[in-house]
Amino acid sequence: MGKTLTEKILSDHLVEGELETGEEIGIEIDQVLTQDTTGTLVWLQFEALGLDEVQTELAAQYCDHQTYQFDFKNSDDHRFLRSAAGTFGAHFSRPGNGICHQVHKERFAAPGKTMLGSDSHTPTPGGMGELAIGSGGLDVAVAMGGGPYYIEMPEVVSVRLEGELPEWATAKDVILHLLGELSVKGGVGKVLEYTGPGIESLSVPERTTITNMGTELGATTSIFPTDDNTKEFLSRLEREDEYVDLSADDDAEYADEIVVDLDDLEPLIATPSMPDNVVPVSEVAGTDVDQVMIGSCTNGAYEDILPAAKMLEGREIDKRTDMIIAPGSKQSSELLAREGWSAELMAAGVNFSEATCGACIGIGHVPASDSVSLRTFNRNFEGRSGIEDDSVYLCSPEVATAAALTGEITDPRDLDDVEDPGFEMADVYDGSTADLIAPDNAVDDGLVKGPNIGDVPLKDPLESHLGGPALLKMDDNITTDHIIPATQDILMYRSNIPKLSEFTLSRVDEEFAQRALDSDGGFLVAGENYGQGSSREHAALCPMYLGVEGVLAQSFARIHKANLFNFGLLPLEIDEDTYGKIDQGDDIEIVDDVDEAVRSGETEFTIRVNDDWEATGTLKASEREREILADGGKLPHTKAQQEGSSGAAPADD
Amino acid sequence: MGKTLTEKILSDHLVEGELETGEEIGIEIDQVLTQDTTGTLVWLQFEALGLDEVQTELAAQYCDHQTYQFDFKNSDDHRFLRSAAGTFGAHFSRPGNGICHQVHKERFAAPGKTMLGSDSHTPTPGGMGELAIGSGGLDVAVAMGGGPYYIEMPEVVSVRLEGELPEWATAKDVILHLLGELSVKGGVGKVLEYTGPGIESLSVPERTTITNMGTELGATTSIFPTDDNTKEFLSRLEREDEYVDLSADDDAEYADEIVVDLDDLEPLIATPSMPDNVVPVSEVAGTDVDQVMIGSCTNGAYEDILPAAKMLEGREIDKRTDMIIAPGSKQSSELLAREGWSAELMAAGVNFSEATCGACIGIGHVPASDSVSLRTFNRNFEGRSGIEDDSVYLCSPEVATAAALTGEITDPRDLDDVEDPGFEMADVYDGSTADLIAPDNAVDDGLVKGPNIGDVPLKDPLESHLGGPALLKMDDNITTDHIIPATQDILMYRSNIPKLSEFTLSRVDEEFAQRALDSDGGFLVAGENYGQGSSREHAALCPMYLGVEGVLAQSFARIHKANLFNFGLLPLEIDEDTYGKIDQGDDIEIVDDVDEAVRSGETEFTIRVNDDWEATGTLKASEREREILADGGKLPHTKAQQEGSSGAAPADD
Repeated sequence: MGKTLTEKILSDHLVEGELETGEEIGIEIDQVLTQDTTGTLVWLQFEALGLDEVQTELAAQYCDHQTYQFDFKNSDDHRFLRSAAGTFGAHFSRPGNGICHQVHKERFAAPGKTMLGSDSHTPTPGGMGELAIGSGGLDVAVAMGGGPYYIEMPEVVSVRLEGELPEWATAKDVILHLLGELSVKGGVGKVLEYTGPGIESLSVPERTTITNMGTELGATTSIFPTDDNTKEFLSRLEREDEYVDLSADDDAEYADEIVVDLDDLEPLIATPSMPDNVVPVSEVAGTDVDQVMIGSCTNGAYEDILPAAKMLEGREIDKRTDMIIAPGSKQSSELLAREGWSAELMAAGVNFSEATCGACIGIGHVPASDSVSLRTFNRNFEGRSGIEDDSVYLCSPEVATAAALTGEITDPRDLDDVEDPGFEMADVYDGSTADLIAPDNAVDDGLVKGPNIGDVPLKDPLESHLGGPALLKMDDNITTDHIIPATQDILMYRSNIPKLSEFTLSRVDEEFAQRALDSDGGFLVAGENYGQGSSREHAALCPMYLGVEGVLAQSFARIHKANLFNFGLLPLEIDEDTYGKIDQGDDIEIVDDVDEAVRSGETEFTIRVNDDWEATGTLKASEREREILADGGKLPHTKAQQEGSSGAAPADD
Repeated sequence: MGKTLTEKILSDHLVEGELETGEEIGIEIDQVLTQDTTGTLVWLQFEALGLDEVQTELAAQYCDHQTYQFDFKNSDDHRFLRSAAGTFGAHFSRPGNGICHQVHKERFAAPGKTMLGSDSHTPTPGGMGELAIGSGGLDVAVAMGGGPYYIEMPEVVSVRLEGELPEWATAKDVILHLLGELSVKGGVGKVLEYTGPGIESLSVPERTTITNMGTELGATTSIFPTDDNTKEFLSRLEREDEYVDLSADDDAEYADEIVVDLDDLEPLIATPSMPDNVVPVSEVAGTDVDQVMIGSCTNGAYEDILPAAKMLEGREIDKRTDMIIAPGSKQSSELLAREGWSAELMAAGVNFSEATCGACIGIGHVPASDSVSLRTFNRNFEGRSGIEDDSVYLCSPEVATAAALTGEITDPRDLDDVEDPGFEMADVYDGSTADLIAPDNAVDDGLVKGPNIGDVPLKDPLESHLGGPALLKMDDNITTDHIIPATQDILMYRSNIPKLSEFTLSRVDEEFAQRALDSDGGFLVAGENYGQGSSREHAALCPMYLGVEGVLAQSFARIHKANLFNFGLLPLEIDEDTYGKIDQGDDIEIVDDVDEAVRSGETEFTIRVNDDWEATGTLKASEREREILADGGKLPHTKAQQEGSSGAAPADD
């Protein structure tokens, strides 16, 4: 039986397991990527592993979220990241050099490689045949240490493209169309592999717009085969020697197939406040627009800004509308400036900003209250732009520019005297590399930690007896936002676990953090679906720092449960009756030689309450998860393994 | 007797008083300027005056401080300012179009005009012969309403320039030299009028660097005569018809003369943390530099960035050093982009940001902890950059660029193979005006106020009997920072007086604001020098909003006392004995037909305490101040006058 492209790349990198859907596999990682809001913790964890040097072929540390540096903590983070990259052997991309996914695509991504990145849009270079997956920072740290990355083998689904895009329809409309069809859950547990004759009409930058925003479908990753277009793009990047011919076998079997006829597409737009609220632009035409932004890892490249420049040449934007361009890479800015396009954009009234992705998560250029913002970004979740009740629409650069010209949402096909600028790449991407410091060229001045950058706490191995109070009793559906809020005033402490921990569960009970610290041990008690929401590792790390030993809940959200293992907290499922009977403050004991029981595969644990009554807690965990938990979490686990193999890189896990 | 240039312009605009040093004069204002952190209150006050249209020849509203728009309140402010400019007839400069002083110089400043601006660096266009003065926002609002501006006639001092600047010495070194010689108090109560043969070697942009930073000397303003260089600059701005020949009479008499021989100057630098800590660059050469910034209203123009571009052409900045350029105007960015210089700067590793002055007051690009930042700005007060214990140095663009090249403070004369780039203007300043919306071209959609923009409270006329508790008793030297802190989390409420008032004196007593509100009247009691520090009007406006009726203090800081009059609060001086005897909470009454006594020139007022004992408070005020106070402050006063003159612009005051 033939293989899909995904299976081929996974096979080449497989170190554990078999490629059967739903089975856990371990794969070798070639490249890793981190950015400034997740990277500090990655490097602190790498440091805690006690390793000297990055073990992957390539690691790159980007500074792209907080480039405006609102606070010295941001600048301190950037300085620390530069020092960590220099110390441990990663490329360092300075603040202002661009968005990780754009810069990585231009400088490093290569067909057939695997990549792990601590950012959800890591799949971007799938458009050039790299298998790239987003993960938590701890997984990235372990991968940099040479450990495999574990994942459940996803379904591989074919997205078959036919035909060719008509005028004014773009790659953004392809992925918006898919979102409208499949919804933001449509790709969960799947790799979307693009196939079919429609592919050849799409250049690599167009493909990466599609693979980037596959994340909004919930896909594990998205990938295109390579072809002459890939070769051409790599050639213009002056990296044609990295070309590898990659495609699925003709008789490859897919779990499913989705067909998109490009001929049928038209300019689309995602209305507030979900990327799958997709309608034709014409349906919302006429809506007043206060702000237009071009940029982001989806549509911030040279090729995305150029159409706007062509559309605006010799024209001025509407007086009611502000237009901001935050380029995806400084190389884009440099090429556009060199060719005179930046000056044209400025002359039209565009505020040309730094290369940054900040605005996409509410860092800078926050929309005014009760206003409409059209953005070429990939997400418009409510409040993400930095203001509650926002009205953010997602669209192509062409649709965004049309709105800037008219002051209202406009189907670009209805513009007078403006031609479709078409799609055009730079002849040669020969921008300076002054902002990309290679490991062998780094200033090796040791790790530079400002006062807000603390060490990562390490937990001891699980003990045989766990005991302490029920520190907090919570209802159903507690989210990671409840556990560690993501607002900026709190997130700036992400490199400072002791400080960040003060905010743990503060939205539920302001006294919790201090009570947990004072108690020196204890448990969280929750109803159904504890830990739903983001993959934020801090939601497990901070309770661990505060001394929490386990969580008793009726059920756990999947990713958060994995994080509890990763930070050495025992997640026990309890029944409704037990949940009902435990009160906050009750004395809890788990008494069954816990460490041994966890390692040996025991599923039932006795919970003794107030030395008065008993109930049963259930541990559902794989063998690997049990080892991690018993060792005190993934960091101590990896470290223990590494010591077992006499200081070399961690052996296969 | 001959006249100084200052006297000539003042004579032409005099509507009240005589030009004798120390006497109060009223002058007509031709142009006004506001920016986004002071402008919202200016327009709210203008609205409260009930006027329909700006009465000055020209008013311009710039958005330059908060262009990164960290919060929706910033974007709301910008939208409100656009709507106010459109409604009342001011030019509106969009966020991203540049720094008020730079854009105003390029677009509007003209020889012989008077200008009032709600920003301390308003004197900038003195370099082209405009007499420009910084003031509080209320004065600007009244001037826009057609009222005169009142000021004590300053001393006019001649700064005689001789010789010509040697290689690598710049206009920045002229003003740094003066700061080193005269200190930050050297210009207080003075107009610095530049004279002498050295003038002709300085272009207008160089002159405006000097006049801009005259503010750091404490000068009321600084001014240069006009000459062929002025004509040349205006011609390149395509405004040569605005040229007026202006100079002092040969026999003009100056209060003092300071002589600067330009030949003797060398590259200078202000070390942390005061602009007058000036030393030769060579004295601190070798200090590691983490950040270099070129920009600001002092050195952010095309002519300031061009030397950096020439020095960096074909080179890269040091890996240890970040270099950020935030241009003074988008016209500068556009010209530099058009000519290819922006691309050169980016290629060298420069992060080219928006046109903004934010970083100068800690909005963006905050230095890392324990780091050194070299900036071409005008102020380096401790903490101003956004981090306590900062190390900010002030210097010319050439010195800043030299540090970026080497990673340490470097006398540019010691650079290998780098030539002095010299000074060069653009041939024609023909950048787009898309970001500068003229009043007759505005969208007139009424005032758009977001939820954070409240009305300005108006006080009733003074009553005949004032009574209430001593709400707070304070020590000596309470600053305006104590009264209304200037930190960003608080300042973002500057357009929302009810919210901002909650922070009034919170650094002294967190309960104060609520207590004052609950009390419905009462007094502040303080020792010596109450209200020292900035000219912040909110320090009087917020206590007024909370219902405070007067301040009893042993002495008052000059500007704050003027603000107390302007917002209708009675400032009474008390002796040390009385201060000692009054306790917080005591019941205070002022019983002498207060309103009449204030108007009639009474200086002594009886203070009755706890209905038990009496003391005397002294009112020191001019006739005009007494009228303002009795009317309930300057806004009600101006409004009353305006009503008296049947709705027309306020008559001469």
